[in-house]
Amino acid sequence: MADCQCDDAGSLSPREVHDRLTAQRDQVRTLKEDMADKADIGAAVQLLVKLKLDYKLITGQDYKAGSPPSEGSVVQDNGPSEEEDADVDTVDPWNVSATSAKGVDYDKLIVRFGSSKIEKALVDRLEKVAGQKAHRFLRRGIFFSHRDVHQVLDAYERNNPFYLYTGRGPSSEAMHVGHLIPFIFTKWLQDVFDIPLVIQMTDDEKYLWKDMTLEQCHHYAMENAKDIIACGFDVNKTFIFSDLDYMGSSPEFYRNVVKIQKHVTFNQVKGIFGFTESDCIGKISFPAIQAAPSFSSSFPQIFKGRKDVPCLIPCAIDQDPYFRMTRDVAPRIGYTKPALLHSTFFPALGGVQRKMSASDPNSSIFLTDTPKQIENKIKQHAFSGGKDTLEEHRAHGGDPDVDVSFMYLTFFLEDDEELEKIRRDYTSGALLSGELKKRLIDTLQPMIAEHQRKRKEVTDDTVKRFMTPRPLNYLLGNDKDTNANPVTM
Amino acid sequence: MADCQCDDAGSLSPREVHDRLTAQRDQVRTLKEDMADKADIGAAVQLLVKLKLDYKLITGQDYKAGSPPSEGSVVQDNGPSEEEDADVDTVDPWNVSATSAKGVDYDKLIVRFGSSKIEKALVDRLEKVAGQKAHRFLRRGIFFSHRDVHQVLDAYERNNPFYLYTGRGPSSEAMHVGHLIPFIFTKWLQDVFDIPLVIQMTDDEKYLWKDMTLEQCHHYAMENAKDIIACGFDVNKTFIFSDLDYMGSSPEFYRNVVKIQKHVTFNQVKGIFGFTESDCIGKISFPAIQAAPSFSSSFPQIFKGRKDVPCLIPCAIDQDPYFRMTRDVAPRIGYTKPALLHSTFFPALGGVQRKMSASDPNSSIFLTDTPKQIENKIKQHAFSGGKDTLEEHRAHGGDPDVDVSFMYLTFFLEDDEELEKIRRDYTSGALLSGELKKRLIDTLQPMIAEHQRKRKEVTDDTVKRFMTPRPLNYLLGNDKDTNANPVTM
Repeated sequence: MADCQCDDAGSLSPREVHDRLTAQRDQVRTLKEDMADKADIGAAVQLLVKLKLDYKLITGQDYKAGSPPSEGSVVQDNGPSEEEDADVDTVDPWNVSATSAKGVDYDKLIVRFGSSKIEKALVDRLEKVAGQKAHRFLRRGIFFSHRDVHQVLDAYERNNPFYLYTGRGPSSEAMHVGHLIPFIFTKWLQDVFDIPLVIQMTDDEKYLWKDMTLEQCHHYAMENAKDIIACGFDVNKTFIFSDLDYMGSSPEFYRNVVKIQKHVTFNQVKGIFGFTESDCIGKISFPAIQAAPSFSSSFPQIFKGRKDVPCLIPCAIDQDPYFRMTRDVAPRIGYTKPALLHSTFFPALGGVQRKMSASDPNSSIFLTDTPKQIENKIKQHAFSGGKDTLEEHRAHGGDPDVDVSFMYLTFFLEDDEELEKIRRDYTSGALLSGELKKRLIDTLQPMIAEHQRKRKEVTDDTVKRFMTPRPLNYLLGNDKDTNANPVTM
Repeated sequence: MADCQCDDAGSLSPREVHDRLTAQRDQVRTLKEDMADKADIGAAVQLLVKLKLDYKLITGQDYKAGSPPSEGSVVQDNGPSEEEDADVDTVDPWNVSATSAKGVDYDKLIVRFGSSKIEKALVDRLEKVAGQKAHRFLRRGIFFSHRDVHQVLDAYERNNPFYLYTGRGPSSEAMHVGHLIPFIFTKWLQDVFDIPLVIQMTDDEKYLWKDMTLEQCHHYAMENAKDIIACGFDVNKTFIFSDLDYMGSSPEFYRNVVKIQKHVTFNQVKGIFGFTESDCIGKISFPAIQAAPSFSSSFPQIFKGRKDVPCLIPCAIDQDPYFRMTRDVAPRIGYTKPALLHSTFFPALGGVQRKMSASDPNSSIFLTDTPKQIENKIKQHAFSGGKDTLEEHRAHGGDPDVDVSFMYLTFFLEDDEELEKIRRDYTSGALLSGELKKRLIDTLQPMIAEHQRKRKEVTDDTVKRFMTPRPLNYLLGNDKDTNANPVTM
């Protein structure tokens, strides 16, 4: 497995990580003094940064040379040190901001988070196991990072099944096309692997973080569930749940939450999420609730009490801190670490450095937009990488790397060859900004219309069916060969 | 209402409490400089201490003259200040220790906690409302402190019902006689007021605090429930619940927990409970779970969705910090503050400064003890206030205030006149230590035997009946006059 060693920091003592860090720090200094090759210094610095993150993850404290770890001492965040880049992108569950117009530097993020890059070999393997062409999100690096995916594939090939877990924080009724990314991809995974899926609606989280009532948050969870169901999930293999409802319906889920809460300190969530002493105790303990669905014993109605069914979590990379914590806790409570597939962020219409917001209708394409609204928004608000005048554009071409219309097409245009032709023509100047925007409008209008048609078909009764805790109709891997009944152990 | 003004600190801003504190501090200094009457200085100091506690409760920070409150600043515990006694008893949910052989100074505790003393007028009123003689625990000051009890009695007299809430942390199978105190008293309250009762078994708390598995904690909850049921509670009016089970059975309960968790910061639980950054996030958020049963909406199956049924909590005073927090939060989430009745602590057999422990069978009388064990323990281990020799005892008499056998009789001997005669005779020397012990043995042996007989009758099925969430068979106050059916609003 190519997964980074730091991910296993949980099995090292804080002291061991501290010593490893000190050694690495010395090596960086030696390399610098020796005027070593720039690439070598860079690699050594990257490992150092990675070790520092691990150290903070397991101790909740910043590394300080000469100060071995002590539980309970005060955490001091000194900000990026001399070795780290001053212009670091901010990526956590509540804030994403890029320092470059091209967006977040995802390669650096992989190093900082200690995850693994999705290399061509993994895409090829997924194609082989799935028996079909990889999803465009994989082919185009939109899902770009992972943890332990080779392990769940190994198990799958040995007829040991896994399940999928993804989620949504229902902060408003207005979902935009970017919110569909994890669900479009998860549906593909469910189809090709034919496995169960659980979808968590964190309405409790939204209540804790936002100025909204419990009733509002729960209402948004139900409304958002309709958009998710409209993505085409199989009701026989999918369980969608609101935390506010499911916590109060499943003693096993609460037992797992308490288990996790016993094994994570305030120092640790402070280090991972940046919580402060002024934060409410609900926020401080919430990460355990997002962690719990990673363990199959949280869903006895689905897994018949089995505690060892591995979990694969497709999500945007900003959610990774929750699952770093989860993976750190898992072995200490006798559970399997969940595997992850991380996606990049979906850009705002105005450019990667702008924010998408439900209160600014022009910040994105919403799932409720009419064809006319889609056309107007893209024409007026989609950040363009084209040149200011026709002459300039024809002469020098546009820049697809900052052009939001081109970015959106990489998400939604299925045809690889057409996409490549658009890139070439736009870069050369043969394709104008208006023409590029037209292509995006032609792609999104039918897609959104189709989504709206499907969403209309989702009745309250359908939502209830998806959201009722119940057995799912699927066979565990080992049963498939023998055509036996679902396992009842 | 005689309830202390500080209890309403929740309705004052931190700044206002800070200013009031500064003024009070100045007054104490002036009184001291003026060599004022000692009682006046004492009263002013007591109010100052009370204000400091309030300040810490609402801000999580210690008062510092000249430093107005700021959320998020570091809490520094400077220990007792010049005005406070150096020898302060420790009383919190996890530690109780007295500095005197006579035990905790409960009058001082009332001042420190900002509760109200149970005066004769309140005992008389309870007798009048109840229509029968006050329970011996009230007559003898074993329940000695309260919050807002006059208010629930006012409402009761206007035919607005209240309900009772008490609980137990099931840390072992071995319960001792002291554990029965809140339950004996709560049963009396239930009988005389004819009202519903909820009993929380905090098995999740024990899991978080102790080195035990979830299964062990849950098992102890079930076993302890049998001892509680053996106290004679009415199954038609009593709901006993394990947190591990009920949290996963009641969306309404979890909703209240989240509401409370949103309105309490880490700074506040740090100030109230002394939590540190090294504590697990489960401990940090647990107080919300002990708070939630104080609100009738946590039990929709009992109260038919009514959110305004007031709650009265009989408990030992060490549990008060939980309910100070609860009362602070209640108005901010639209709920009624629970009222409280506080009991003193039950002394260990070896004296009030010793600890009772399930692992030391001689530290108390356990509910499983045989008559012979009871006799031997009291004869050999009950701390005596008698003199060393017969001659000395006859000449100078014993000290009932430190004599554990006498203390136990104040808890369990019903006859006031006999108890008073024992006190007089023991003090005069007419009654010897051995004779006093004999009277206690004669009291406890049949009491424990009767408990064991009743406990044997409690089957697993009985436990299940008490612990199943269900409607209770009772009439809300307003229905009694009209003989109507239970309210269904």
